[in-house]
Amino acid sequence: MSLTPGPQHTAPASDGHRTEHDMLGDVDVPADAYYGAHTARAVTNFPLTGETLAARPHLIAALAAVKHAAALANAEVGALDGALASAITGACAEIRDGALHEQFVVDLIQGGAGTSTNMNANEVIANRALELLGRRRGEYSALHPLDHVNLGQSTNDVYPTAVKLALDAHLAELLAALAGLREALAAKAAEFADVLKMGRTQLQDAVPMTLGQEFGAFAATLAEDEQRLAEARLLLHELNLGGTAIGTGLNARPGYRERAVEHLRGLTGIPTLQSSPDLIEATQDVGVFVQLSGVLKRTAVKLSKICNDLRLLSSGPQAGLGEINLPARQAGSSIMPGKVNPVIPEAVNQIAFEIIGNDVTVTLAAEGGQLQLNAFEPVIYRSLSAGLDHLAAGVAVLTEHCVRGITANRHRLAEAVAASTGMVTALSPALGYETACAIALEAHRTGRPPLDLIRERELLTEAELHVLTSPASLTGRPAR
Amino acid sequence: MSLTPGPQHTAPASDGHRTEHDMLGDVDVPADAYYGAHTARAVTNFPLTGETLAARPHLIAALAAVKHAAALANAEVGALDGALASAITGACAEIRDGALHEQFVVDLIQGGAGTSTNMNANEVIANRALELLGRRRGEYSALHPLDHVNLGQSTNDVYPTAVKLALDAHLAELLAALAGLREALAAKAAEFADVLKMGRTQLQDAVPMTLGQEFGAFAATLAEDEQRLAEARLLLHELNLGGTAIGTGLNARPGYRERAVEHLRGLTGIPTLQSSPDLIEATQDVGVFVQLSGVLKRTAVKLSKICNDLRLLSSGPQAGLGEINLPARQAGSSIMPGKVNPVIPEAVNQIAFEIIGNDVTVTLAAEGGQLQLNAFEPVIYRSLSAGLDHLAAGVAVLTEHCVRGITANRHRLAEAVAASTGMVTALSPALGYETACAIALEAHRTGRPPLDLIRERELLTEAELHVLTSPASLTGRPAR
Amino acid sequence: MSLTPGPQHTAPASDGHRTEHDMLGDVDVPADAYYGAHTARAVTNFPLTGETLAARPHLIAALAAVKHAAALANAEVGALDGALASAITGACAEIRDGALHEQFVVDLIQGGAGTSTNMNANEVIANRALELLGRRRGEYSALHPLDHVNLGQSTNDVYPTAVKLALDAHLAELLAALAGLREALAAKAAEFADVLKMGRTQLQDAVPMTLGQEFGAFAATLAEDEQRLAEARLLLHELNLGGTAIGTGLNARPGYRERAVEHLRGLTGIPTLQSSPDLIEATQDVGVFVQLSGVLKRTAVKLSKICNDLRLLSSGPQAGLGEINLPARQAGSSIMPGKVNPVIPEAVNQIAFEIIGNDVTVTLAAEGGQLQLNAFEPVIYRSLSAGLDHLAAGVAVLTEHCVRGITANRHRLAEAVAASTGMVTALSPALGYETACAIALEAHRTGRPPLDLIRERELLTEAELHVLTSPASLTGRPAR
Amino acid sequence: MSLTPGPQHTAPASDGHRTEHDMLGDVDVPADAYYGAHTARAVTNFPLTGETLAARPHLIAALAAVKHAAALANAEVGALDGALASAITGACAEIRDGALHEQFVVDLIQGGAGTSTNMNANEVIANRALELLGRRRGEYSALHPLDHVNLGQSTNDVYPTAVKLALDAHLAELLAALAGLREALAAKAAEFADVLKMGRTQLQDAVPMTLGQEFGAFAATLAEDEQRLAEARLLLHELNLGGTAIGTGLNARPGYRERAVEHLRGLTGIPTLQSSPDLIEATQDVGVFVQLSGVLKRTAVKLSKICNDLRLLSSGPQAGLGEINLPARQAGSSIMPGKVNPVIPEAVNQIAFEIIGNDVTVTLAAEGGQLQLNAFEPVIYRSLSAGLDHLAAGVAVLTEHCVRGITANRHRLAEAVAASTGMVTALSPALGYETACAIALEAHRTGRPPLDLIRERELLTEAELHVLTSPASLTGRPAR
Repeated sequence: MSLTPGPQHTAPASDGHRTEHDMLGDVDVPADAYYGAHTARAVTNFPLTGETLAARPHLIAALAAVKHAAALANAEVGALDGALASAITGACAEIRDGALHEQFVVDLIQGGAGTSTNMNANEVIANRALELLGRRRGEYSALHPLDHVNLGQSTNDVYPTAVKLALDAHLAELLAALAGLREALAAKAAEFADVLKMGRTQLQDAVPMTLGQEFGAFAATLAEDEQRLAEARLLLHELNLGGTAIGTGLNARPGYRERAVEHLRGLTGIPTLQSSPDLIEATQDVGVFVQLSGVLKRTAVKLSKICNDLRLLSSGPQAGLGEINLPARQAGSSIMPGKVNPVIPEAVNQIAFEIIGNDVTVTLAAEGGQLQLNAFEPVIYRSLSAGLDHLAAGVAVLTEHCVRGITANRHRLAEAVAASTGMVTALSPALGYETACAIALEAHRTGRPPLDLIRERELLTEAELHVLTSPASLTGRPAR
Repeated sequence: MSLTPGPQHTAPASDGHRTEHDMLGDVDVPADAYYGAHTARAVTNFPLTGETLAARPHLIAALAAVKHAAALANAEVGALDGALASAITGACAEIRDGALHEQFVVDLIQGGAGTSTNMNANEVIANRALELLGRRRGEYSALHPLDHVNLGQSTNDVYPTAVKLALDAHLAELLAALAGLREALAAKAAEFADVLKMGRTQLQDAVPMTLGQEFGAFAATLAEDEQRLAEARLLLHELNLGGTAIGTGLNARPGYRERAVEHLRGLTGIPTLQSSPDLIEATQDVGVFVQLSGVLKRTAVKLSKICNDLRLLSSGPQAGLGEINLPARQAGSSIMPGKVNPVIPEAVNQIAFEIIGNDVTVTLAAEGGQLQLNAFEPVIYRSLSAGLDHLAAGVAVLTEHCVRGITANRHRLAEAVAASTGMVTALSPALGYETACAIALEAHRTGRPPLDLIRERELLTEAELHVLTSPASLTGRPAR
Repeated sequence: MSLTPGPQHTAPASDGHRTEHDMLGDVDVPADAYYGAHTARAVTNFPLTGETLAARPHLIAALAAVKHAAALANAEVGALDGALASAITGACAEIRDGALHEQFVVDLIQGGAGTSTNMNANEVIANRALELLGRRRGEYSALHPLDHVNLGQSTNDVYPTAVKLALDAHLAELLAALAGLREALAAKAAEFADVLKMGRTQLQDAVPMTLGQEFGAFAATLAEDEQRLAEARLLLHELNLGGTAIGTGLNARPGYRERAVEHLRGLTGIPTLQSSPDLIEATQDVGVFVQLSGVLKRTAVKLSKICNDLRLLSSGPQAGLGEINLPARQAGSSIMPGKVNPVIPEAVNQIAFEIIGNDVTVTLAAEGGQLQLNAFEPVIYRSLSAGLDHLAAGVAVLTEHCVRGITANRHRLAEAVAASTGMVTALSPALGYETACAIALEAHRTGRPPLDLIRERELLTEAELHVLTSPASLTGRPAR
Repeated sequence: MSLTPGPQHTAPASDGHRTEHDMLGDVDVPADAYYGAHTARAVTNFPLTGETLAARPHLIAALAAVKHAAALANAEVGALDGALASAITGACAEIRDGALHEQFVVDLIQGGAGTSTNMNANEVIANRALELLGRRRGEYSALHPLDHVNLGQSTNDVYPTAVKLALDAHLAELLAALAGLREALAAKAAEFADVLKMGRTQLQDAVPMTLGQEFGAFAATLAEDEQRLAEARLLLHELNLGGTAIGTGLNARPGYRERAVEHLRGLTGIPTLQSSPDLIEATQDVGVFVQLSGVLKRTAVKLSKICNDLRLLSSGPQAGLGEINLPARQAGSSIMPGKVNPVIPEAVNQIAFEIIGNDVTVTLAAEGGQLQLNAFEPVIYRSLSAGLDHLAAGVAVLTEHCVRGITANRHRLAEAVAASTGMVTALSPALGYETACAIALEAHRTGRPPLDLIRERELLTEAELHVLTSPASLTGRPAR
């Protein structure tokens, strides 16, 4: 029997290229490239978004951590020679420290369920490991991207595992940014604790509250989102590493899976990483990403609502609500002198819209999974990571360039409370609903402050009015 | 050869039921039901939303029109006995006039790509036709739901054809409602043609305009949506009737297709009905519904934006913009006396949100089509028809109960223009951008009207100010 | 001072109507109606979807529970006369038992943030309570819909509280249905535990597994969704009752809030009901609904994927995968004799698409909230409750009419495993990757089973093959 | 009166920076930068996605075209000195030829409705024009970014105009790619015109067709999308240039608007460019983008469906449908030797999902417009342009690397037709529905080809069978 040469042998380089082989034949690769044949084919196949793996350092570091853990585990179960394992883990450590990221050249959007991402990692790690062994790049007979770097692994367990670890890192940055924003909002809540204003429901004057309560609600609502995100984050820690192609663990040595996950805990410092109880389910299911996307969308919705409110409360300066002032960040208009716009909240609104759309993308991709695998994880990762990064950046800008500098137009707020018929609700139990209603209608009709009408008719004494219209009484907060 | 009895024979009725047969065996059907075995099975299979075909008279009428046209065409090409054709068309005519709609008992959401809807129509028409022939219901040997009513047809050409005709009718109602709203807005534009106000960009005071221009833009934008909807409507008129199961026309007689479409033109009064040039493509493709859904969504987005603006412009009464008043339609609050809310626009907003969500449903259903058929047309029709009906109702309410009764707070609007720094833009070419900017900043800082500052500094004469601040000059409209 | 008559007095009935008053004037109400003026106006204002509150018994029961708890609490804090409280709670108890639901006549889609829903409840309860007191309907001077039934309440705390309780009930039904489906899938997993088949990734033959593992993964993935739904359900138990209009608790007596929530725990039997720590935030925030919608969407995505798989695995009968058989539920075609279609999974797919679209509707509605309130909760509730109900129904049908009756085509499955090149992966560690690859390519080229090629070349002994190709070895499961 | 120095004077550069001024004070700008103070502030304000204007050459060229046209028009109406106009148009011409794109440094996602984009263009053009005049960068007293480059303009008319022109260019590329794919599919339709196969509905064997018809339907459906896109493209040609801030045309000279649009027609070579009839509506409305997004989504849905079909038809090689072969583009697996995956269609699926999500982003952004402007056009443009570019790239790859190389497994297709019960439908008119049904059921039960059963029972003669089962008869195509 004569078998043709298998995949991924390398011929001597000539004129700036070396020639590699895979199951489809020969491929030219730049002589100085750390990636190889599979990566080169993928570059040709997916010239789609121009955004490559190199744009996601968290993913590259996560891939290196997985390969690092796998090499350690394979060595321990006797599947991998110790010298090869050392070379592989050495290469992985460098990559995790930031080296060679520019060698991850495949487009983030790729067919193949992440195979090309895994292959890119295998090849870069193999070639760097070869160098560490004193070999030259492409000398795969000494250390092979598939036989050694990918040993006991499949794209179908490596890629989802790396994606989860990467998303954990993206998410950590968003959570830090959200905490900063929440604190800035809480600081404003304290600053404005005594500023009385009209609360509004359905954009109509309702009953009084303080501006501090308004900002306090913003802070409180974000705190809830931080909790939801933290819960979703924990779900990312359930891994299918060791399941190989479809979750049956075919071709992974006994003991490998447990050790690989244990090493991953150590390398990442995430103690809650664990194997999924059903690796077949875990290999095909992307529910964790749908969950995270849904919670991220929830956070985006909240932030968009807060930004809408900030824009509305700062509308004016004359013909708007004019209750608060956002810091001026840039000239607002190329034609209107002196105009200043709420540009920072507007930017965050747009990021929120992006994330809401991304959630639909993730949903479609999840629904499209078939049988033992979902082939569309690359677009899931791209959408989620972009949303997390953009929102983290937007939240930081919102905190620093907007919320911290907000000031209140106290005089205008006080005037509005005094003039408002909304005050009548507070007096309704004392006046009776019907009398209160008649006062409200007359105040609206005549434009006169309702308290004036009440005083004029001597419906309540000054002492009664003083108690009933005190900020503490009106806003449900104990007087200071 | 001994063949078992085929589908759809009927045994004598006993105790309020008759027994019918189909390929799966016996089925009990209420004795007085016009539907039969296939429908009865579908009722058991799809107890899902509680909303049956009977909730969509337009679809039932359209099904009857298709069956009517098919019977006429089949008779003409010699495939159907004249007496049977007469009975069938008689039954169809009654149904198109509103009879027997309560016999369409299958849930709108159903598996089978509409097969159960087609079967329900076949059976009701057959049983009514049997009565017209002096037979009793279930006597299918005389006139058969499949062999005669469905002759030369398949669900896969009947159902999409009926859905398109039904959507045409739903859409006609929305277009009528939109025309009414557009006219009401245009009337308000005329009424408010001389009411000067501050225009706003990004919720910040920009430059003056008239309230008439603001309402005129609402009218103009709806006119564009009417055009887009009318274009999408025309696409509904391309039919796949005659393609039978997958578009190859298998089992339809030569000449049948052309005659059936011709009769459908006559029965519906829609002269632009025509056969698709590629019936295989037309059978599997649901692009027309995605297109209509997208344009309907566009209209919903426009209406939602208009409703947002109406709610914003009428916010207050004291602590809001307070530029216009919406008619009071109901007490706004169970706790706040005298409060009135913009309930009609709020309702239309919600219908718009429903439609935007439905568009995603339609998209998913369209994307899920496989090979020669899309099995998910029932949810496409349900989503589109609900959106069209709800929006037509919402638009009518918005017209009658809101827009027609809107009034302007002319005094408040005039005050805002006088006070606004936005006026400075109009004077900028005369003052120079730098001087204009300085005036704007000082006006904002001091709260003084910019025109007062200009007069005080004698930067412009009264005559110049009169010209530059005239409504005609400010708003780009010729003076009356 | 002369004040005009206030809202909601009732004039003597004449000719089948009684006349009620509210702040906008007189309203005619049918003499036998339990609802009153506010409801009647809402019916006029919102003729939108035709689907009224009566279509949601869970919501009506929840409203009655809230009113019941509020009356008990108000009596305890001395705000409400004991006799009136008894009458109110008596009426509420009847409604919770299913009485008077047909009196809830307002459209589910309504402006006013649920005000008309609250008013409908207030009026029906008041009029039934009046009867229990021996009075006639409309005699509001004795017991008033607002002053007594709505005492210490606002739509803005009552409506969200009732919506959360109602959703809890809807969700309970879905969870029960999902548990049934999960158990049915697990039973099939046990039944098919020894049926070897080819696993597939990206629709291409991958490596062997058992059909039991395939169904086991379906069961496992649903179990996770049940957990996520249960987590989201707990979030529904945080209430803003007692916050009144905007969360400041204005006009609610001290002690009322705590007692009302305590009574609600007792009435509903949900021990985890509790007050939100920030009632202002809780009044304006709808994050809980976005969360629930996101998790419901996740469940829908999973079910849609399972249905896609069932349809794919049962494709054929000849020209498809033909691995399993779904029970025949109805004739599949009006034109193709003997055709049977996967109608039940197709129906569930469509419900999933509906839910995915609804999630966008909920998102839009949530994002549209402004300042102290979200006016769009009616469409949020309508969308969520429809999705929960439809999915519960669809899951039940899928369990009973599809999954329980699935059978396996064991012969065809075994043949495919024997013929597949996917088997080569299992032999790859023994053969070496390169030899394995060459065998796979030759098998594919010649169409010969790879095991035959291996035997022919004597690459492995029969004993080795026996071990390596045993189901236990192939599928990662211990041999029985 | 003492007025402080206005915006945008430039102080002498020191140590690699020059200092510019705007209304908010001093800003340091790199000495060699062509952009200025406004751009520098925007870079600080929007460090969000890392994707800058420079990533969209079409937008930069469009901005330059607008500024070019405006300068020509301003010169003609006497508003701009001829020498300045020449310098400006010279700079614009260079930028349109590809120069200075790296100076467009603002993030694509930005608040301010595109103000920073317009400012970036104004500043780069001004500084290059200054050089052309022999001046140095920053010498704005000679030629000013706002007073001269932006003369008679506002971001609110410049930005939407440029966005429309840019989208026209993006769309042209997609249309060219789609035409290529359509032609490749049509070529396959011709190649496979005589290859008989089973058509499928609902994944179940239906009736015969040719593989050519299947590919022909793909080509036909794309042709329709090309038409819809072309219609949407025309809507992009209606411009609001000349409307300035809110559409009233304030501060634009008479005659300017008409001339600017005329010059834009000349510069772009798009003869259908025209002014909108209602510039106020046109300034605030983004319906054209919603329309385009909807149609783009429709195209994405179609392509996703085609890719799903290609993946399904090529499933196998043994345990799948195996009807066609996609060209092998790369090794399919890091663990499974010899596996080849449909990576190209999978990539296009993911781009389609991205576009479907982007449509929701665009919808949210459109719905969020308020009063006289939509502040969220930047995210609309980013989403649409990314979708158009990615889809154009994906379609080109699909054409070249997949469709052109597809081959048919003719033997397998023929076998399936012979074995299928679906053939019975064609014989149903001759056999009668009941006999046909019985044959189909027996064929299914026994696994025997239905034609064998018919021959055995002598139900039809060989001559009859020959006619009825001829490809021409079965597929509705005339015999060749």
